[in-house]
Amino acid sequence: MRFPASSLKAFTAKAFESVGVPRADAHTIAGLMVEADLQGSDGHGIFRLPQYIRRIQAGGVNVKPTIRVERSRAAMALVHGDNGMGHLVMKFAAEHAIEKARGAGAAWVGVRCSNHAGPASLYARMPMRAGMIGLYFAVGNANHLPPWGGVEMLLSTNPIAVAIPAGAEPPIVLDMATTVAAFGKVKTKAQRGEPMPEGWMVDREGKPLTDPKRVHEGFLLPLGGHEGGYKGYGMALVFGILAGTLNAAAMGRDVVDFNADDSTPTNTGHAIAAIDISAFQELDEFRKNVDSLSRDIRGSERMKGFERIFLPGEQSYAKFAERARDGVPLPEPLLAALNQLGGKLGIGKLG
Amino acid sequence: MRFPASSLKAFTAKAFESVGVPRADAHTIAGLMVEADLQGSDGHGIFRLPQYIRRIQAGGVNVKPTIRVERSRAAMALVHGDNGMGHLVMKFAAEHAIEKARGAGAAWVGVRCSNHAGPASLYARMPMRAGMIGLYFAVGNANHLPPWGGVEMLLSTNPIAVAIPAGAEPPIVLDMATTVAAFGKVKTKAQRGEPMPEGWMVDREGKPLTDPKRVHEGFLLPLGGHEGGYKGYGMALVFGILAGTLNAAAMGRDVVDFNADDSTPTNTGHAIAAIDISAFQELDEFRKNVDSLSRDIRGSERMKGFERIFLPGEQSYAKFAERARDGVPLPEPLLAALNQLGGKLGIGKLG
Repeated sequence: MRFPASSLKAFTAKAFESVGVPRADAHTIAGLMVEADLQGSDGHGIFRLPQYIRRIQAGGVNVKPTIRVERSRAAMALVHGDNGMGHLVMKFAAEHAIEKARGAGAAWVGVRCSNHAGPASLYARMPMRAGMIGLYFAVGNANHLPPWGGVEMLLSTNPIAVAIPAGAEPPIVLDMATTVAAFGKVKTKAQRGEPMPEGWMVDREGKPLTDPKRVHEGFLLPLGGHEGGYKGYGMALVFGILAGTLNAAAMGRDVVDFNADDSTPTNTGHAIAAIDISAFQELDEFRKNVDSLSRDIRGSERMKGFERIFLPGEQSYAKFAERARDGVPLPEPLLAALNQLGGKLGIGKLG
Repeated sequence: MRFPASSLKAFTAKAFESVGVPRADAHTIAGLMVEADLQGSDGHGIFRLPQYIRRIQAGGVNVKPTIRVERSRAAMALVHGDNGMGHLVMKFAAEHAIEKARGAGAAWVGVRCSNHAGPASLYARMPMRAGMIGLYFAVGNANHLPPWGGVEMLLSTNPIAVAIPAGAEPPIVLDMATTVAAFGKVKTKAQRGEPMPEGWMVDREGKPLTDPKRVHEGFLLPLGGHEGGYKGYGMALVFGILAGTLNAAAMGRDVVDFNADDSTPTNTGHAIAAIDISAFQELDEFRKNVDSLSRDIRGSERMKGFERIFLPGEQSYAKFAERARDGVPLPEPLLAALNQLGGKLGIGKLG
């Protein structure tokens, strides 16, 4: 069943308002969550609403945060999120990075005392829309990854996103977890009772774990898998230090598992960098060069069995257009959960 | 057979001087190349000397470049390398990034018209030694990677390096190609006549290629391999845009294969970012936190079959100490090639 983005956004905003989030903030969060659904980040949009609301009701998130710049120089800032919703904190941080980069040519903004903010690409896209390259890093909100050679889950799926503007072509947007599969994909398989492909998870002896009922007996494999997973482990660690440790945000043992604990502040860390393309070359020239690179790649000879070569972000871009036109499909169990939530909050049903 | 770093450095500097590189520059390049050997980047140190000299003799590299800042703002610069040796260009760029970051808190420096500069971590370590976090990206000097689903090699192994200072613990240094294996590893296997492990390369039909004699019939697999290689492909592309396209340096079809062509200027692009930790928090506090994270990880429970958990860069760090003390081992064929070169250049033999 499909719903227009406007309905999802109105419902989501009402839900946040009903638990004390000021009206303007509720609309900002709802807009970003529905943007996640539009671009196909199904595990990061309205799917998260029941958990976010539960966390607010448990006192785990500050609904009236004073989001502020704690430290600042010409090309950096450290933002204190005051335990507000991650979407609000990251929007503030990204806008700050853009403003600084417009003057200094580039800027790096670190964030602490924030919360889960949805898909990484949402924030990397903000500098992109301002004609800049955006880079985003985050510490995930639950540790599912041990160091290479270990079994203690000290790391999360710490993602990277890079968003690059193009001209006539879709922008190039990379958004990836540093594990083979993001934990959201595991959750989806578990919900559907389907086995996982080999290579997503292993048990404590390093043997493939494919039964989604046994998720808690194992952990995710870092990008690179059985043979080369030390690279994914390395990225999870250094991206986590950039987003967490550098900002005095949670990292390693300090990460709060927000699936198991609704009330402890997560002290989530993020980092956003903005690079002002026009400081390096004419923005239009850059856009043309990215277009031409995209076309070279898309038009290059294909391997047998592949119908098309995609650029990173191209499928999300197409999905956005399709869902903006035809609505966002919600699976039955999610719709039921949202309607139940709507009933409890007294804001009515979605459909 | 082992050689003290000082001998390797003297020999390398003499080789460069003999082909017209000014004395101070020859020593700078030699110092960085031997640093690569000391840290265990065997494919990026003195191993490259014959190729570098051949390229200079063919007129492919400018031995007296005017390396200069073309564009500049408070936190960015675009450096023109004037087709000089990459080591000189990147040292200039990294020092510039450090200086800007000291004022602005962070800086991003792009480079064009450069050349191969050795291992990525050499340059990420420069901000690190100044109490900063260093990030480095480069466009590789030969395309060995097709886009995901393709067979045309439009991309290189475009690496990322991130270097993070610690306190009493070794620094954390990630240095990785965005392919499963760097091409240098393939070359080493080929030299030794050993088969490659499955997963490094595939042929044009996507089937495993393990015979190093058939290297030219196939290409490297991106990080993530058969199932998840779209992630490695995405990284190779966006890191290449950051290091190449943004700086009007070679990328995609424009990349010159420096193994096959000694004389065409490569217009190599790099990017270096420096983040001044003291802008975010007390540097000593940060160092302590990185130490404690490193110890948590190293001391965590191991998987059966693993004797030790390593932090990224820890093995290079140990190798550096060992080789600084005991000398750098050179395999027989490399030693022979270097001595032959020494004879031709009239600078004597290494050993």
